[in-house]
Amino acid sequence: MANIALIGLGAIGSIIARSIERSQHTGYYFATTPRQSLSIKYENSLNETYSIDSYTLQDKQIETIFNQVDLVIIATKATSNHTILKKITPYLNQDTPILFAQNGMGQTEQYNQSVPSVVYISGEQLDDKSVIHFQDQMLILPNTEHSQIIYDLLNSDDLTIVLSERFTRHHWKKILVNLGINSITAITMSTCHIVHSQYAVEWLTEIIREGQSVCPIDELKTDNFRHELIQLYQSYSKEMGTSMYYDLLNEKQTEVEFIQGYLLRYAKSKKIDTPYIQSAYSLIKAKDSINQQLVSSKNVAVGDSRNIQ
Amino acid sequence: MANIALIGLGAIGSIIARSIERSQHTGYYFATTPRQSLSIKYENSLNETYSIDSYTLQDKQIETIFNQVDLVIIATKATSNHTILKKITPYLNQDTPILFAQNGMGQTEQYNQSVPSVVYISGEQLDDKSVIHFQDQMLILPNTEHSQIIYDLLNSDDLTIVLSERFTRHHWKKILVNLGINSITAITMSTCHIVHSQYAVEWLTEIIREGQSVCPIDELKTDNFRHELIQLYQSYSKEMGTSMYYDLLNEKQTEVEFIQGYLLRYAKSKKIDTPYIQSAYSLIKAKDSINQQLVSSKNVAVGDSRNIQ
Repeated sequence: MANIALIGLGAIGSIIARSIERSQHTGYYFATTPRQSLSIKYENSLNETYSIDSYTLQDKQIETIFNQVDLVIIATKATSNHTILKKITPYLNQDTPILFAQNGMGQTEQYNQSVPSVVYISGEQLDDKSVIHFQDQMLILPNTEHSQIIYDLLNSDDLTIVLSERFTRHHWKKILVNLGINSITAITMSTCHIVHSQYAVEWLTEIIREGQSVCPIDELKTDNFRHELIQLYQSYSKEMGTSMYYDLLNEKQTEVEFIQGYLLRYAKSKKIDTPYIQSAYSLIKAKDSINQQLVSSKNVAVGDSRNIQ
Repeated sequence: MANIALIGLGAIGSIIARSIERSQHTGYYFATTPRQSLSIKYENSLNETYSIDSYTLQDKQIETIFNQVDLVIIATKATSNHTILKKITPYLNQDTPILFAQNGMGQTEQYNQSVPSVVYISGEQLDDKSVIHFQDQMLILPNTEHSQIIYDLLNSDDLTIVLSERFTRHHWKKILVNLGINSITAITMSTCHIVHSQYAVEWLTEIIREGQSVCPIDELKTDNFRHELIQLYQSYSKEMGTSMYYDLLNEKQTEVEFIQGYLLRYAKSKKIDTPYIQSAYSLIKAKDSINQQLVSSKNVAVGDSRNIQ
């Protein structure tokens, strides 16, 4: 019925792609490298494979495709937004909504038709072709005219779309969740096991307290909410990492600018001192920048060997 | 000429043992497991092996040995001091000096005959039998009556003993050096490569600034000294770790209580706020405590399998 472009086929994008494939809509999928299939594994060891044709943003067809789509969904990491928007916005109709299905805050302000979302889809990319889906398949959107269109197109048994009057509260809750667990696992390169140490709890208490001090939502500023977050962290599987932990482990760029960096800039604009968030930001950026140096020096090395051949 | 007991045959202890072996003194060596040799490798790929008889603190001879020694040197990690002192002090003569050749501060106050030192011996333990010696073989001691005895016994071409009127300055300099580089490598589980990121420099600047704010030595409180430390870190080999990094990597207990912990307690006693040091302390303690839990659960598992056999 509708033409939907989905950019990004990672843990989040694959679950959205699955719901498009199961619907009557036509999906145009974009990934870094062209793919013919979409594999989703489940913890109960079942798995599904869908045949798809995927494009890259370097393909010539992008003008035709983005001219005719009714909805664009960006499910890449927020670090790619700038490049993607520059590439696709020249071809989009002025009223085509762009839904951002990503972690973090602050990335959706660049384009009028942007619709942010709070993503509850938990999974992990296993390789170039497959992801594992752990739990949840829900996007929470602010209740606006644009998001009503998205609800009508996407809400199904396979993907729950919630339109919320209290979107800002949901968004801040998610960023405070991420602030604690993503920071400690990424900085220390530990899985969630670490949150069972009392010293980790002391550290998490301080960083969440700072996050709460900048948060504009009163009901997220309580001691009780902080205790709930720590209990939540301690309920996670000890072997599980976080997206930021896996990104550093795999030398991929993290979303630090859209979580810790966003909070830090927000705190600075309010003149609130947040040394734990600042410290976390610097350490993650340090690891990120060393990783990116290593990656680009490897790429140079690959380029060299090609020249030699 | 003299009888010297040396406890600990790691990177520091081995270099001290080498100087005893090359002298006329008789060395009594103590390690966790009995050893017959002492191997020291050098970066120029030369290596030396000395035949030694080593004891453990569980041996029955310890009463006789500690009764007759003229000097005790403790070159283990500071975390073992309590256990060691409890074991040996009942047998020591009241005037036998105990020289502590260790990293950190605050560990030498328990015993009257204690002599602290600032250790400049850079090496790494390779396995149960050998160490690699990178550079430096110097101990700086406060200029007291006891340390004069130690100077006469130990100072040689193989081990430089410096008696300094400005011991406290040397000691604080070393702890500020350790505060920056040990903290960042241990927390992030990165080698010294990381200090080449500008974000790491920002983080180091903040934590050293806090260390300087509690440091009682005026000439170590300057911006210039902070810049010198960062230049020093950037001069280190990128592949090199620190003792605290290797300890966490190898699931050994770190000396965090004698570096970050000491500074934190000192800062609290002066009512100085040090959030970066507090944050570093909590994160290292969190990793340390999770490691120690893993080690003891492995030990329990070993015990179990023995029972089954």
